[in-house]
Amino acid sequence: MQKKEVLIIGAGLVGSLLSVYMAKRGHKVKLYERRPDMRKETVAAGRSINLALSDRGLKALEKIGLADAIREISIPMHGRYIHHIDGSSAFQPYGKEGQFINSVSRGTLNKKLMDLAEENGIEIFFEHKCSHVDWKTNTVSFETNGKTVDVKADLIFGADGAFSAARLQHQLQADRFNYQQFYIDCGYKELTILPNAEGDFAMHVNALHIWPRKEFMLIALPNLDKTFTCTLFFPFEGPQSFSRLDTKEKVKDFFEKTFPDAVPLMPTYLEDFFNNPTSSLVTVKCYPWVREDKFALIGDAAHAIVPFFGQGMNAGFEDCSVLDDLMEHHGDHWDAILEEFQLLRKPDADAIADLAVNNFTEMRDRVADPKFLLQKKIEAKLNEKFPDKWIPAYSLVTFSPHIRYSEALANGMKQEAIMQQVMQRADIDSRWDDDVLHREIVDQL
Amino acid sequence: MQKKEVLIIGAGLVGSLLSVYMAKRGHKVKLYERRPDMRKETVAAGRSINLALSDRGLKALEKIGLADAIREISIPMHGRYIHHIDGSSAFQPYGKEGQFINSVSRGTLNKKLMDLAEENGIEIFFEHKCSHVDWKTNTVSFETNGKTVDVKADLIFGADGAFSAARLQHQLQADRFNYQQFYIDCGYKELTILPNAEGDFAMHVNALHIWPRKEFMLIALPNLDKTFTCTLFFPFEGPQSFSRLDTKEKVKDFFEKTFPDAVPLMPTYLEDFFNNPTSSLVTVKCYPWVREDKFALIGDAAHAIVPFFGQGMNAGFEDCSVLDDLMEHHGDHWDAILEEFQLLRKPDADAIADLAVNNFTEMRDRVADPKFLLQKKIEAKLNEKFPDKWIPAYSLVTFSPHIRYSEALANGMKQEAIMQQVMQRADIDSRWDDDVLHREIVDQL
Repeated sequence: MQKKEVLIIGAGLVGSLLSVYMAKRGHKVKLYERRPDMRKETVAAGRSINLALSDRGLKALEKIGLADAIREISIPMHGRYIHHIDGSSAFQPYGKEGQFINSVSRGTLNKKLMDLAEENGIEIFFEHKCSHVDWKTNTVSFETNGKTVDVKADLIFGADGAFSAARLQHQLQADRFNYQQFYIDCGYKELTILPNAEGDFAMHVNALHIWPRKEFMLIALPNLDKTFTCTLFFPFEGPQSFSRLDTKEKVKDFFEKTFPDAVPLMPTYLEDFFNNPTSSLVTVKCYPWVREDKFALIGDAAHAIVPFFGQGMNAGFEDCSVLDDLMEHHGDHWDAILEEFQLLRKPDADAIADLAVNNFTEMRDRVADPKFLLQKKIEAKLNEKFPDKWIPAYSLVTFSPHIRYSEALANGMKQEAIMQQVMQRADIDSRWDDDVLHREIVDQL
Repeated sequence: MQKKEVLIIGAGLVGSLLSVYMAKRGHKVKLYERRPDMRKETVAAGRSINLALSDRGLKALEKIGLADAIREISIPMHGRYIHHIDGSSAFQPYGKEGQFINSVSRGTLNKKLMDLAEENGIEIFFEHKCSHVDWKTNTVSFETNGKTVDVKADLIFGADGAFSAARLQHQLQADRFNYQQFYIDCGYKELTILPNAEGDFAMHVNALHIWPRKEFMLIALPNLDKTFTCTLFFPFEGPQSFSRLDTKEKVKDFFEKTFPDAVPLMPTYLEDFFNNPTSSLVTVKCYPWVREDKFALIGDAAHAIVPFFGQGMNAGFEDCSVLDDLMEHHGDHWDAILEEFQLLRKPDADAIADLAVNNFTEMRDRVADPKFLLQKKIEAKLNEKFPDKWIPAYSLVTFSPHIRYSEALANGMKQEAIMQQVMQRADIDSRWDDDVLHREIVDQL
């Protein structure tokens, strides 16, 4: 195999993991990061504090022997724990017994991946901001310490996230580059649930907590230090929105009425609300992702998505393992590797982007609807009786890494269309657990 | 009224017209253009050579007394002149008697508008390339002659086209900027039909000529010098595409088979084919277009569209006249003027963008289909009998400048849905001219 000089822009989750993959294939890898070394100083992350790692991400970590190390720093979440406005609650498992997703700290995970990159002989250059790429000579310019450094490479990856500088350079110098960035009307703000008086988790630890409120929602994921990180997804504008909550009194009133059981667990929420930033949520779709045999966008830089399917990082990690399969298959033919990479991954990236936007509606609204809960109960039965035929889209995406996102989306749309019909039956409340009905439903697949 | 220092980026068609509008309102206007002065030296235009000016554009010119001067340099086109592959031809009027569009040279028109700008006291700075905008201090930086010049203004307009530098500065420093650029699979190449042996137009002068060939088409618009500018709209890739026509033999063979009646009129087409560039066709949608009371995108910079409805320039000119109405209405309240400008124009820009993409299908494919021709014949009858009720979308867009693009689109979709049903009737070939049927159709509106 031909050893390549590989330059990766961005030492976030995907860039760091990719560097290890490339090093394991024998390439010489240099990793460039805009921010300072987060292992040495506190770095304000651009994105959320914790993430849900699921089987696709784990499979990509597994492939290069990193999964166990990461499992040690993560907390299993077996389902959704729903907090209703009247103070009642309910638990909805994500899948079958033994299926769960993992709450993991973005910072801890990123630091670990950087350590692993360095253990694999990769040099990381911090505080290097990509300012230009000369595609003719394959030279990337970085600004660092007030000067400009030019670096040449055989192969360049843009792994620098939703607001990728590499992608901008690609876009500015490409003809026929299709590009879309789309913001949803909601932003998010992070708050904290502290440990209880006994120093333990203040709520059930092995769940993703949700306070669904139709137009918006609060969620909480557990951290190793027994806190939960809460995220309020909330409209920017409108009658109930960030723009209206402009005094402590208004925020207090809103929280006490809307999240009555959460307020006592968040002693600092009023300060947090005004000190923490309000962040926006973008979907990025673009094409092409590659240039000849020498450049590819990967992860969020190629396909940023909203967080409502918990798949942003997982999709980026899967990019790395798919790319690795293609290196295995095509050997030194980087033009073939990169072309097949984008042809394979583009429909899957589009599918998970659409699934993620749709899931926002489901999480904030439908999970509190009795009709929807009955539908899910029927679907759980179908899945139990016909485990190879009726698999929820959530399970396919989250627990079936051998199924492509695009297949999961197509399958989910088909099942949803069938269930929409089923739920309109007048006798559905009495017949929902009926064997004949279940067989009828599955036969429609 | 408060006099503003107005800075316009881009002295193309829209920027030049806008400058006159602003000057007529008493503002002090500076106009900056990336290219050299096209009145002094030949400038390679980024876009097509001639354009179809229709009533919306004329209305905007009329409003500041420029329409007559422009009519003098344009050629009326009363309909489509269809050239079939068997050598036969047919003429389809665009509208009613006396309704026509106007073929005008982009260069001649632009030069005239620049002259008019200068006559109105506007300073034009050529070879000034916008490189940065500081939105806090409202300062635009230009690169000129190897140095950087900073210019401050009260009000900045980005009128610098589909690949707007102003828009990029806006995008890079805005949160929640929705943006989309989308290329169709076809590109275009310009060729020339020369005058005939007598020195006159080689084809019927008062028409837009079309050679519709399903997957692609050739069109021709008349010029004042008795030539026609032909444009081949053709796929980039595929069995019949630019990528396959890579030798003179292949081009010759293709043209002789596909455009038999055009070839004898284009003595230089083989040279032209290889010397002229192949250009791409992009749609740009974005939002927001404005910043507070101090910046707006306008024309192609806000909403670039493909040329198949002949409305790109007309939409940009209409932007100027709508903005002028809002200046009249809101006086010095520039925050209100700009906010209403984008709220009003965004749905119209989206509508004409979609109409333009759809019209490509109609022009290259449907205008050669007998069923479609029959449908158009019925619709022409309906329009004749019920002139206030049944108006074709093409007429609304092209000849009814008081109707918004978004209304024209909605109306057109409704009519098309009705006609789809009508055309499926078994008796349509015999009953197409039946009064009862016509009344039935119109009653469905």
